[in-house]
Amino acid sequence: MLQSSILVLCLLTTSVFAKTFSLISPDNSTKVLVTYQDEALSYKIIKLGSTVIRNSKLGNVLNQVDLSKGLKLLSIERSSKDESWNTVWGEFKTIRDQHNRMLIKLAKDGYLVNVEFKAFNDGIAFRYDFPAQNKLKKFEIINEVSEFKFNKNDEVWWTPAFKDNRYEYLYNKNKVTEVDAIHTPATIEKVNGYTVAIHEARLLDYTSMALKNWGNGTLKADLYPWANSNIRVKGQTPLVSPWRTIQIVTNPAKLVESTMILNLNDPVDPNLDTSFAKTGKYIGIWWGMHLGLYTWGSGDKHGATTENTKMYIDFAAKHGIDGVLVEGWNIGWDGNWYENGDLFIFDQPYDTYDINYLAKYAESKGVTIVGHHETSASIKNYEAQLDRAYAFLNKHNIKAVKTGYVGTRLNKKEWHHGQFGVAHYTKAMKKGLESEVLMVVHEPIKQTGLRRTYPNLVSSEGVRGQEYNAWGAPGNTPEHTTIVPFTRSLAGPVDFTPGAMDTKFDNWRPNDRVPTTIAKQLALYVVIYSPWQMLCDLPENYEARPDAMEFLVNVPTDWDKTVGLNSKIGDYTTIARKDRNSDNWYVGSITDENGRVITIDLSFLDKGRKYKVKGYQDARGASWNLNPHAMEVYETEVIGGDSAFDLFLAPGGGVALEFIAL
Amino acid sequence: MLQSSILVLCLLTTSVFAKTFSLISPDNSTKVLVTYQDEALSYKIIKLGSTVIRNSKLGNVLNQVDLSKGLKLLSIERSSKDESWNTVWGEFKTIRDQHNRMLIKLAKDGYLVNVEFKAFNDGIAFRYDFPAQNKLKKFEIINEVSEFKFNKNDEVWWTPAFKDNRYEYLYNKNKVTEVDAIHTPATIEKVNGYTVAIHEARLLDYTSMALKNWGNGTLKADLYPWANSNIRVKGQTPLVSPWRTIQIVTNPAKLVESTMILNLNDPVDPNLDTSFAKTGKYIGIWWGMHLGLYTWGSGDKHGATTENTKMYIDFAAKHGIDGVLVEGWNIGWDGNWYENGDLFIFDQPYDTYDINYLAKYAESKGVTIVGHHETSASIKNYEAQLDRAYAFLNKHNIKAVKTGYVGTRLNKKEWHHGQFGVAHYTKAMKKGLESEVLMVVHEPIKQTGLRRTYPNLVSSEGVRGQEYNAWGAPGNTPEHTTIVPFTRSLAGPVDFTPGAMDTKFDNWRPNDRVPTTIAKQLALYVVIYSPWQMLCDLPENYEARPDAMEFLVNVPTDWDKTVGLNSKIGDYTTIARKDRNSDNWYVGSITDENGRVITIDLSFLDKGRKYKVKGYQDARGASWNLNPHAMEVYETEVIGGDSAFDLFLAPGGGVALEFIAL
Repeated sequence: MLQSSILVLCLLTTSVFAKTFSLISPDNSTKVLVTYQDEALSYKIIKLGSTVIRNSKLGNVLNQVDLSKGLKLLSIERSSKDESWNTVWGEFKTIRDQHNRMLIKLAKDGYLVNVEFKAFNDGIAFRYDFPAQNKLKKFEIINEVSEFKFNKNDEVWWTPAFKDNRYEYLYNKNKVTEVDAIHTPATIEKVNGYTVAIHEARLLDYTSMALKNWGNGTLKADLYPWANSNIRVKGQTPLVSPWRTIQIVTNPAKLVESTMILNLNDPVDPNLDTSFAKTGKYIGIWWGMHLGLYTWGSGDKHGATTENTKMYIDFAAKHGIDGVLVEGWNIGWDGNWYENGDLFIFDQPYDTYDINYLAKYAESKGVTIVGHHETSASIKNYEAQLDRAYAFLNKHNIKAVKTGYVGTRLNKKEWHHGQFGVAHYTKAMKKGLESEVLMVVHEPIKQTGLRRTYPNLVSSEGVRGQEYNAWGAPGNTPEHTTIVPFTRSLAGPVDFTPGAMDTKFDNWRPNDRVPTTIAKQLALYVVIYSPWQMLCDLPENYEARPDAMEFLVNVPTDWDKTVGLNSKIGDYTTIARKDRNSDNWYVGSITDENGRVITIDLSFLDKGRKYKVKGYQDARGASWNLNPHAMEVYETEVIGGDSAFDLFLAPGGGVALEFIAL
Repeated sequence: MLQSSILVLCLLTTSVFAKTFSLISPDNSTKVLVTYQDEALSYKIIKLGSTVIRNSKLGNVLNQVDLSKGLKLLSIERSSKDESWNTVWGEFKTIRDQHNRMLIKLAKDGYLVNVEFKAFNDGIAFRYDFPAQNKLKKFEIINEVSEFKFNKNDEVWWTPAFKDNRYEYLYNKNKVTEVDAIHTPATIEKVNGYTVAIHEARLLDYTSMALKNWGNGTLKADLYPWANSNIRVKGQTPLVSPWRTIQIVTNPAKLVESTMILNLNDPVDPNLDTSFAKTGKYIGIWWGMHLGLYTWGSGDKHGATTENTKMYIDFAAKHGIDGVLVEGWNIGWDGNWYENGDLFIFDQPYDTYDINYLAKYAESKGVTIVGHHETSASIKNYEAQLDRAYAFLNKHNIKAVKTGYVGTRLNKKEWHHGQFGVAHYTKAMKKGLESEVLMVVHEPIKQTGLRRTYPNLVSSEGVRGQEYNAWGAPGNTPEHTTIVPFTRSLAGPVDFTPGAMDTKFDNWRPNDRVPTTIAKQLALYVVIYSPWQMLCDLPENYEARPDAMEFLVNVPTDWDKTVGLNSKIGDYTTIARKDRNSDNWYVGSITDENGRVITIDLSFLDKGRKYKVKGYQDARGASWNLNPHAMEVYETEVIGGDSAFDLFLAPGGGVALEFIAL
């Protein structure tokens, strides 16, 4: 792998002119050109002859030394990889990691830094590597200069960064020149037809990256700082940055097939017994709080009672639902919990919640309780109790926990997204792995593919989820879920909590509503992936809809493969997924406020094989606003292969389909 | 090349199951899967994992035998090619012909037919080959069953076929299920993001292909018949069909870079002296007829007078324009020429047109007269005079001729587009080559890349050109020219006749107008390629605009290379071309009725090289309808490479730029 280093070194020390090194993807479609000029490094990305990222700066500024300029090029190492690996769970059973790699070694005044590139068929990634070295031990990064240079008229789907509501905003689409600072994944629709998603992979021991509008179409890395500081990262060599990922597709639907971010994470420890890491569905004493039926705290409307939980367990057992989330079960919810996160105790239930009885009852019914750790962003209080909290879960055979970090800052001081937050979420994730507890993290740090290494991290929020539809905040828009699969979902599984059967809840919050039809709610179970998928609504609303319930029981949470069939981000999308445990396929298609007919091609099915199709579609005259609950279920048969199949979607509607292999 | 034949034969004669053979493009991006099943052949096209054409039938029905079914598979031959060749003139100096090829040999009851596929990086082509054989000598094709199976919601840019106005219609965009019969090139925007153009290459000894809506998203070959007949092609073995071409791009702008159609034509005879085949510009005694200033026929407004022609020659010589077209110069125009095409005499000028004097005068000024042969679709009359007509051109050193075939049928009977028409246009083209006369054909058969073999065929019409803007027909729409480069232009050079400087002609036709700004007229010289490009307006209108005239004089007609920078078909497009005779680049960008800022990436220029830019752009406040003549010329400098450069386009406007290499 070092064969090219010597030659390169000779070329470069004898000339002051620019040198360009190219790295191309295994299928020759995607090329990164790295230029060393004026003692600095830059890169450019070309896809099939078209410029995707214009020549963009690379480098970091440390408190110790400016490693963005004055660099000497030492050597270039190249290698290639083509391996397949199996996921514990996910959208794909087997993933191929096929890429070409280039490691560029640089030095300045005795300081060493490397830049590593990988070229995949689905995009380009790079990261910074601060190797062990004599001159640099502890250090601070104050500026990462990495740029992603688009054209001025390229448009981006974005949510704002450096805001108090974390990742919970509606998406907007603007020219890249019109935004301020934005979160990743940010998805850019280029004027030249390509769709590009910028994110990061393997965020550990670092801070997270936002993107700042740097003018002229350039988005620049904007690292989250420590509180009241210009320090972004406190590091110690050897240290590697997260991968900066640039997924590039010709057809936005294909973003859901990209596996680059998982490929850039570390394999799970082969000695780890991952049999506990199961996917499933859960209901919860939760939506009732949002509607005003229950309270989190104690009192006559307290949701987390023994009787109530027992009723939910019975419902779950009857329908084969795996878990029952109970929020508001532990001491700390009374009073202003939002401001006083230090009051939460993670192993002390309210008296009205008989955990000893319920744990046994749930076990006897084949259901797990899903624990709940709301920290109210008091990391200090939570970390102090972490061992006790997880011991309590283990003691009561609670196999999954939902954690929460409501608040504008961690410990009223640090950004959720900064290095402090990353360290805490990592610590909790490792604790969950060690305890064999599945985790669904709300108000999380963004996902970056760590689920490959930590398969207990089944899902997280980090999105403006279903709950906003109950709040009059205002609610989400009908187009919102047509954007999520191509933005937030690129980071990893989303606990969006679909499944509202009563979308109007006129008895509770008559001025609010879920802006979809019932059929669209079903389709979301295919469209927005989560291995631990909630049925958000009240049990009685499911009992009232046996037609929908049949699909909700059948739809898998673990897939053999995933195919993006079509999408216009913000308008509609259709995704097909194959069950990991059968030959059946599931298709979800959703639309924004406009009804439409979407034609799909059945070539994703086995060619020539017969399938029974069960379709859950909007009834004639259905619409999200006037007639959301009208759904019809039809059956037909198709032969897999090249044939067209029409889907009918009402305004704000969708369709969910089962293709049962015969 | 025959090594795989034996194996395939064995496999196929021992099984009744489907067999699929794949042929992939050299860059691995584009794959055609040919299936032999139920004794018939079909094909499917996949691009980067996405289905572009669903499984589609192949075959022909002859009067003698149905060669679409009951076929036996004899053998499959494969070969590859990677060669570069130089054009005589065109959008590219050097073209790479890199493809993989598969020839499938079939038989039925002793009849032989082959299907040949070529896979290029820019698309797939196939054709039928009826080889020399004992059982089939003369034959008639009554139906070609070839299908192009899209999805029902894929949309197509189309003009109607089987209509009296030949190719002269505005483009519409509809779902493929909503059209009837349409001309090629037909350009399909697929729901899955790809843009696909269907056309044909090397149309000789055959009839031309329209496409018929066959339901369910399928477009089927619909061959133009002989008059009052179901016969499409009268053939004699050996005979090959034209190539059916399927150009596939991820970014519509890249269609202008596709060279597949030229690669599918025969090389020019290497023994031919092609030095006469020069590109150039011309003006003409022509627009004055459309405005009502002149008449074609004799009388006091007769345009083709010696004095008038001399004035045009003087104007051309002064500005370095190569040719002067004179319409209405020959006997036949008086009376109802439209109905009486037999009256035209192609070597007899009106008395008012002193060709002996004018030919010498033009030669002394370094200008050529451009002859004119309006046939009014009377092929019988024209072919009878063909030798005399071209001898007349040669005698007077007339180096180019514009031919015309106004009329709804040839000889009042046959479609322009049928086998009769193909035979005539081919005969005339060969006569032009033999006589070393450049030809610009109006009311033509569609171009299919024959210009490679016959470099005298410099341009043709076959489009709803500029003239419609003078007719109140109604005129063309502002979006029309944003569609032409991605439909009609894919066939070959277009004599669109841009260059209107007085877009309102209030003195002549106050109710009509050219629906563009002046700057957009200039941009069309880059956007719509023709090697023999007209300046359509009156000399006095050019003299009044020295600012525009500077660009019109400078803009080349022969290019080293062409780059599609961006396009949304029907909205805007930007194309860059490099002069064949210098290092200068020219860019044309045009928009529909909406003004916009378009950002281009300067990486098409030599990296690091300095260029002086001269931009001819819409002035502030310009618009096609209210203020079309306001143009400003600016100068700046840029460095080639990765940087963004903004273009400002008014409603119905455009911008033309020269990048002069320093």
